[in-house]
Amino acid sequence: PANKKLLLLPGDGIGPEVMQEVTKVLEFFDKKRIASFDMSEGLVGGASIDATGLPITPDVVARAKGSDAVLFGAVGGPKWDKVGFDVRPEVAILTLRRELGLFANLRPATVLDPLIEASTLKPDVVRGLDIMIVREATGGIYFGEPRGIETLPDGQKRGINTEVYTTSEIERVARVAFDLARQRQGRVCSVEKANVMESGLLWRQTVTALGAAEYADVALSHMYADNCAMQLVRNPRQFDVIVTGNLFGDLLSDLASMCTGSLGMLPSATLGAPDSSGRRLSLYEPIHGSAPDIAGKGVANPLAQTFSLAMLLRYSFDMKEEAALVEKACLSVLEQGLRTPDIMQDGKTRVTTQEMGTAVMREL
Amino acid sequence: PANKKLLLLPGDGIGPEVMQEVTKVLEFFDKKRIASFDMSEGLVGGASIDATGLPITPDVVARAKGSDAVLFGAVGGPKWDKVGFDVRPEVAILTLRRELGLFANLRPATVLDPLIEASTLKPDVVRGLDIMIVREATGGIYFGEPRGIETLPDGQKRGINTEVYTTSEIERVARVAFDLARQRQGRVCSVEKANVMESGLLWRQTVTALGAAEYADVALSHMYADNCAMQLVRNPRQFDVIVTGNLFGDLLSDLASMCTGSLGMLPSATLGAPDSSGRRLSLYEPIHGSAPDIAGKGVANPLAQTFSLAMLLRYSFDMKEEAALVEKACLSVLEQGLRTPDIMQDGKTRVTTQEMGTAVMREL
Ligand SMILES: CC(C)[C@H](C(=O)O)[C@@H](O)C(=O)O
Ligand SMILES: CC(C)[C@H](C(=O)O)[C@@H](O)C(=O)O
Repeated sequence: PANKKLLLLPGDGIGPEVMQEVTKVLEFFDKKRIASFDMSEGLVGGASIDATGLPITPDVVARAKGSDAVLFGAVGGPKWDKVGFDVRPEVAILTLRRELGLFANLRPATVLDPLIEASTLKPDVVRGLDIMIVREATGGIYFGEPRGIETLPDGQKRGINTEVYTTSEIERVARVAFDLARQRQGRVCSVEKANVMESGLLWRQTVTALGAAEYADVALSHMYADNCAMQLVRNPRQFDVIVTGNLFGDLLSDLASMCTGSLGMLPSATLGAPDSSGRRLSLYEPIHGSAPDIAGKGVANPLAQTFSLAMLLRYSFDMKEEAALVEKACLSVLEQGLRTPDIMQDGKTRVTTQEMGTAVMREL
Repeated sequence: PANKKLLLLPGDGIGPEVMQEVTKVLEFFDKKRIASFDMSEGLVGGASIDATGLPITPDVVARAKGSDAVLFGAVGGPKWDKVGFDVRPEVAILTLRRELGLFANLRPATVLDPLIEASTLKPDVVRGLDIMIVREATGGIYFGEPRGIETLPDGQKRGINTEVYTTSEIERVARVAFDLARQRQGRVCSVEKANVMESGLLWRQTVTALGAAEYADVALSHMYADNCAMQLVRNPRQFDVIVTGNLFGDLLSDLASMCTGSLGMLPSATLGAPDSSGRRLSLYEPIHGSAPDIAGKGVANPLAQTFSLAMLLRYSFDMKEEAALVEKACLSVLEQGLRTPDIMQDGKTRVTTQEMGTAVMREL
């Protein structure tokens, strides 16, 4: 079969450093003839702004569309804080989601036993935590029109954004959540503010109808977004799969991540709809940012990027065994006590980005 | 001076029970001739729906407008889950906020030492926590137009809500936050999603300009809402005053409350603009809901409603000493080890709603 086409977009800050460690894993699979990838690299974020004036060029978008999967690093930094709203580094992510139709953002929040103390929540509250948040990623208030800032006759300004969801947008992301739940504990919690927003009311009605019609085997519940924020702190283990809109998903998935205590460990996937041949555009990225303050110092944790590769192997290349292998290697390294500074604990061994990457390779 | 006019709106579920305990405190002040109140009661929420078909009647709104302060209980319950979107119990709160112009929702999140173990966060993370969240309450996506659910030509539905903020709406709520910060640690953190929403960008620009022009003595910082959700779990004590819009404020204030671990303890105030005579419409309510599952069982915690009265005395009646007296009484009772079931701990004394109310009275 043809080699899988993989586009690497390291981006800014610690992005390139952590990507570097992951390419070692890819080369290992290649050398061992387990799988062979057709890899290329592109510029995004500040790196792209510096080179082209744009956070992402049409050429890079086209190459992403032509790839079987995109592995993304992180973008942004103080250097580009003053660029215009339309060309800020984050636009690279938003453009890729939108142009590639990546509507389902999968955000696992899991607590690994060796890192249970990293959470600010009590160990009894988070032990064994395993939540999957499915966040809608190409709709809602992130993309709705009208939007903008206008000047009123009296000189005042008015800022406007629009939250819009159609039945089909809600259904397709809910399907992803229901399907995932079937492979997990069989429970979906749908989250909105149906008590104050009509878009949330339509969300609730649509998910309810779809669940009843096609997923009677999945237990569906509903929760208001404010309550969900509270429940993620009070008793996060009550959740299996959470499905929610773009904006609530932004806050709640980050919140759930922080409950695990180790942002430097968590990957994410953003998936499009499968086409007639079953091919599905997809992007994988660590949930941490570009962390410009620690960039270039060799202290970044490469494991979130490595776990992102594992998700990529599982969801896009159907390489479940290899994905599990990579995840097991990461876990072993943690069990051996190796820690980058972000997850350092008393009595453990502090290592650099490179040392961590090398240790993962050794495990493989 | 004329008696202060106080409107009590107990509402549904545990609302009436906890309000009952608070009226004892008011009667005590009256009997001791410390202050005399012109008290009356009205129906809101499900109780009002049952009696009139509406969650709040124009008559009750008018009486609220004519009062010096409103003390609100809680509304809602499964009995009214199926009423229409426009007449659901929550509309009572939204109508009061909107009609009385109560644009500044003050949500303290404090950890009392006797209850530090109630939090799911580690004691070292929350000890001494004292955050004040100022949430905009009459604007944003809660009230913006256009809104609704429409049917498209192809039979699909589309749900729409609009986030709108004008310069003056942002300025007046930011002023409340800056003024509060001056009486506290002098720090304001303004929260939005300026990286994806223009309304958030206008928010940031407006708060920045106001801070520079009039509050140079207050330290102003900015944070994206997703990051704020994380920081509230990672290190909540970094915050003094947080100011944010209606929707983010809904999630973040509930999240901050849950970080304290004792929702049954936390009050809130919602304030309007002072008129030319300095009079300011205001509403006070506990942040907990109507908790229909435990209503009528004598197990509800009346302390949040009692702390709400303390806020009322402080902010609306300028009775700072009496407010402090009430708060001290609540704290003493906790120090004596009395606990309603929601905050029960090993080795403490379990009490009923009434017993808790009586104990507070004894302290007074
Ligand atoms: C970078 C930014 C636009 C983005 C968002 O708000 O969606 C980020 O926070 C995320 O969650 O992926
Ligand atoms: C009752 C409901 C409309 C309300 C809101 O969402 O604002 C509540 O959650 C609150 O925070 O006061």
